[in-house]
Amino acid sequence: MARHDFEPTAFFNAIGTSAPALKVADGDTIVTRTLDAWGVDALGAQRAGAPNPMTGPFFVEGAEKGDTLEMRIDRMTANRETGWTFAPLAPNVVDPDAAQRLPSRERSTWLLDRAKGLATLKTPPPALKTFVAPFAPMIGCFGVAPALGQAISTATSGPNGGNMDYRLFGPGTTAYFPVSVEGALLYLGDGHYAQGDGEIVGTGIETTFEVEFTLRVHKARTIKWPRGETAQEIFAIGNARPLDQALQHATTEMLAWLQADYGLDAMSASHLMGQMARYDVANVFNPAYSVACRMAKRVLAELRSGSSL
Amino acid sequence: MARHDFEPTAFFNAIGTSAPALKVADGDTIVTRTLDAWGVDALGAQRAGAPNPMTGPFFVEGAEKGDTLEMRIDRMTANRETGWTFAPLAPNVVDPDAAQRLPSRERSTWLLDRAKGLATLKTPPPALKTFVAPFAPMIGCFGVAPALGQAISTATSGPNGGNMDYRLFGPGTTAYFPVSVEGALLYLGDGHYAQGDGEIVGTGIETTFEVEFTLRVHKARTIKWPRGETAQEIFAIGNARPLDQALQHATTEMLAWLQADYGLDAMSASHLMGQMARYDVANVFNPAYSVACRMAKRVLAELRSGSSL
Amino acid sequence: MARHDFEPTAFFNAIGTSAPALKVADGDTIVTRTLDAWGVDALGAQRAGAPNPMTGPFFVEGAEKGDTLEMRIDRMTANRETGWTFAPLAPNVVDPDAAQRLPSRERSTWLLDRAKGLATLKTPPPALKTFVAPFAPMIGCFGVAPALGQAISTATSGPNGGNMDYRLFGPGTTAYFPVSVEGALLYLGDGHYAQGDGEIVGTGIETTFEVEFTLRVHKARTIKWPRGETAQEIFAIGNARPLDQALQHATTEMLAWLQADYGLDAMSASHLMGQMARYDVANVFNPAYSVACRMAKRVLAELRSGSSL
Amino acid sequence: MARHDFEPTAFFNAIGTSAPALKVADGDTIVTRTLDAWGVDALGAQRAGAPNPMTGPFFVEGAEKGDTLEMRIDRMTANRETGWTFAPLAPNVVDPDAAQRLPSRERSTWLLDRAKGLATLKTPPPALKTFVAPFAPMIGCFGVAPALGQAISTATSGPNGGNMDYRLFGPGTTAYFPVSVEGALLYLGDGHYAQGDGEIVGTGIETTFEVEFTLRVHKARTIKWPRGETAQEIFAIGNARPLDQALQHATTEMLAWLQADYGLDAMSASHLMGQMARYDVANVFNPAYSVACRMAKRVLAELRSGSSL
Repeated sequence: MARHDFEPTAFFNAIGTSAPALKVADGDTIVTRTLDAWGVDALGAQRAGAPNPMTGPFFVEGAEKGDTLEMRIDRMTANRETGWTFAPLAPNVVDPDAAQRLPSRERSTWLLDRAKGLATLKTPPPALKTFVAPFAPMIGCFGVAPALGQAISTATSGPNGGNMDYRLFGPGTTAYFPVSVEGALLYLGDGHYAQGDGEIVGTGIETTFEVEFTLRVHKARTIKWPRGETAQEIFAIGNARPLDQALQHATTEMLAWLQADYGLDAMSASHLMGQMARYDVANVFNPAYSVACRMAKRVLAELRSGSSL
Repeated sequence: MARHDFEPTAFFNAIGTSAPALKVADGDTIVTRTLDAWGVDALGAQRAGAPNPMTGPFFVEGAEKGDTLEMRIDRMTANRETGWTFAPLAPNVVDPDAAQRLPSRERSTWLLDRAKGLATLKTPPPALKTFVAPFAPMIGCFGVAPALGQAISTATSGPNGGNMDYRLFGPGTTAYFPVSVEGALLYLGDGHYAQGDGEIVGTGIETTFEVEFTLRVHKARTIKWPRGETAQEIFAIGNARPLDQALQHATTEMLAWLQADYGLDAMSASHLMGQMARYDVANVFNPAYSVACRMAKRVLAELRSGSSL
Repeated sequence: MARHDFEPTAFFNAIGTSAPALKVADGDTIVTRTLDAWGVDALGAQRAGAPNPMTGPFFVEGAEKGDTLEMRIDRMTANRETGWTFAPLAPNVVDPDAAQRLPSRERSTWLLDRAKGLATLKTPPPALKTFVAPFAPMIGCFGVAPALGQAISTATSGPNGGNMDYRLFGPGTTAYFPVSVEGALLYLGDGHYAQGDGEIVGTGIETTFEVEFTLRVHKARTIKWPRGETAQEIFAIGNARPLDQALQHATTEMLAWLQADYGLDAMSASHLMGQMARYDVANVFNPAYSVACRMAKRVLAELRSGSSL
Repeated sequence: MARHDFEPTAFFNAIGTSAPALKVADGDTIVTRTLDAWGVDALGAQRAGAPNPMTGPFFVEGAEKGDTLEMRIDRMTANRETGWTFAPLAPNVVDPDAAQRLPSRERSTWLLDRAKGLATLKTPPPALKTFVAPFAPMIGCFGVAPALGQAISTATSGPNGGNMDYRLFGPGTTAYFPVSVEGALLYLGDGHYAQGDGEIVGTGIETTFEVEFTLRVHKARTIKWPRGETAQEIFAIGNARPLDQALQHATTEMLAWLQADYGLDAMSASHLMGQMARYDVANVFNPAYSVACRMAKRVLAELRSGSSL
């Protein structure tokens, strides 16, 4: 259960099978730093190019194809005074004729008051003088090496994770990834100080972070899509276009999860999901969109206590 | 501000321009009853055919094309001992190959404990013996006459509302519809005792209701898609396939709303939505899917107090 | 086998169950005239409003719910000197960021040389001085009354037909529609002098026509989507968004057709379609897109001659 | 203008930046062999694993990022007695409820009569005893190294080409790819003896080929998506899901092509495309679907001759 401090020196724009930056044991904790989405570090130096240069990859001993890698996000400390966003809305999230009426895209700087946990536009338009975005940190892009020798652009995502841009991947959440190669090879970066559903301006508030996380290997436990767990919920992620297919993947994965781990047959799981499931549109901007299907742990706990009677 | 009690005798499977069932004044309240999605009433009698037979239409004096009809949902009282659902998951919400492995579709009866506000499966599979769905009533299908002489099936939805199957259209919510014909002609039905996001088994818990609601006309106030308001949020709805387009409609409508009513230009509204917007997948089952784009009133209130400084 | 000449005086922007304009017998031929998409007639008079005002409806004696209506398009005579189109490309047929760079939409007039069967822009840009579009007439919008009391906007389409904008619906083609109401109630209009695949500028070359067609009822023969037949091919149409779903409908309908009429089981039909099917993108502009799935009659004829050995 | 005979010994399931298998000069011709989609060679030996193992990569001297690689497909000689396909139709190409009724997937062997240019099922169902698929060879999967260090699975496709499964990529067609890395690095495989539109059973008739092709570098000529040219037409390809987006990419690329090479402004190109463009659904089975937008060379030639007057 060692704790490693890793200072990255090389960064990657694709999640593939690069040589490990650090090898750690099952159960170890890593503290490291991430660049922002365009490759600028905490001191303002350009360290790598867009999109979303990754820190890593981290090799976890014992992880093999068919296992699941657990990554508990222990802490995300924003470590720069500024972040940035784009506006206006991305053209693909509004009606095509409305897209034609949008103003030109601009990059805005945000001031990050890390003591108070707030972000404000550096030069706000008059209507937004009092607008404050609360600190709600999340990892925009992270995942493990994909199968078949693929190296997937950090602009997009897949079964192995990647640029999912999901609000709930923040401190306190545990993420799970399907392992395809020895050591799993975890990459991470693209931290957001805050972000709305869908990443509909094409960014969250992009900045740099010190991230602390703990890795564990679940042997011979196979999942197909990234999963996650907060104090209140479990969730499964689907990454694809269109949203319909991302939702299909997330729903299928949740169905499989409930069947494998909660003792539900397809019919029982369907009843539960039909009346209790929740969906989040994580991102609707990247080449692959991301949808989360969530279930409350409270509901699942009631089932288990009940079925033990 | 009269209060009308209306007992329906005719029902409609399309939202069109049928002759008014009742004419009311701007500001009046109506109490009426709805059939379930297959046309069965509170006493178990088959009164009309599927899909979603509608009570109404209600003609509101003074409403004209280009106005907005406000409908405050004051109360939904479930008035039958049973509801029903389908299972398993609908084939279009899982991966196509997973759809091929789903069991056959069955209809299940639910017992509605209206005193406790709970629903339970009448003959639950063993794993669901303790599963209880809390009462969370909503109107599945409602809306006003569409433009151009159309009559739109209550299986689907459009700019005029219809079968949106959105969880937040319950008591305490105020809905808004774009008026296309004189009197607006409001129809409603398809009440759900509870429903998860997406209506992914093809139904909520379908039952009958006594519904009380209050109608008001906003003159010369034009909206393009249904909108709503709860104590905490405002939301705009898009109805279309695929989900991507439903989301585009909802986002475009929210953008227009923030510009028209909250003094925001497109850039300011984009900043706000980009970091604060939320999406709900209302239904992903009907011919047109429904997506809601939500904004917290608290955020909007802070803007206004701020901009008044 | 009467031949009727029908001069329309009322026009419809929705395909519903309006009172019949003319009743004809099974096997009769009708000659009638259609307005252009904006409601202008052959003499340049505005006779009705957009979108796509329909001539009809024609009631065919003996047609009942569950039957199929056959409509042989015998002749389409363009009967005006001019047509019109829009440009540039519609924003939904290009990448969203490319849509933002398109010039503003303009309406262009075309001169129709009916003797030579050619259309030319009235005031062509320099690069198009020699551009000539050959006469390739088609009915953009036609169909029969839908089920359940619906009235569907002529801007869009459904299982009953409507605004499919398919190039192959021209003279020599026989169309088939599923009958939902007594008399079938056929509507038609929106003739195009020519049109590319997809109707990607939002119009064909819009003009007025005299159309001659022959109607026949196929009793107790149920189809789900519009079908068609040329000298060389049979085809099935799907109308929906996204294109994926339109294609699914067309493919499913062709599969059903091959099973019902050509003695193929699902496996045999799949082999045939997998190696021989063709798709057309009829329109990718209207609220519902349209896709055709085609099969060569020659291939089907070889099967039959073969299996008779 | 050398002619190389290359016998592959290593194969790749991702199109990335593997070490060159052969370096050739601009203008050289290569003769080589491809495995079938599952990695079996002309002699029936398993040489590599699925999906679509690639021969190559071929390094073309002088090719650099921003250039275009031309690949003229000179010859495709089927060099095995058998091919194979799947049936029934893939579940994603029919309506979801129809997918649930499809029979189980089976693999079928085809006998390839190379003298006559015909394929027949080895054990045809009775209805298909006389069914013969004509030889219409095509390269299912080919392309060049993508940008940013990506390695893209040969199951899917992107701007760099890949598993497009387009009927027109056969002998006589010239393909064009955007070069992202030095030498371009061309890969190819997955030859089909024949295939219908859409690859709707998930395969063409999969077999092995000897392929002869000629490579040329177009310096400082940048394209975004694969393009092609036959004797009659030019075409641009878009690869994405859903079909709508694949079509948007293809349309956008054709628009750019007409503007860059044929002297048309956006408005003129739109007129031409609106009335004359054709679309093909290349595949609607792979993770990324492929759509081609075609324009007749005859039409383009008339413009040029005209404008030269």
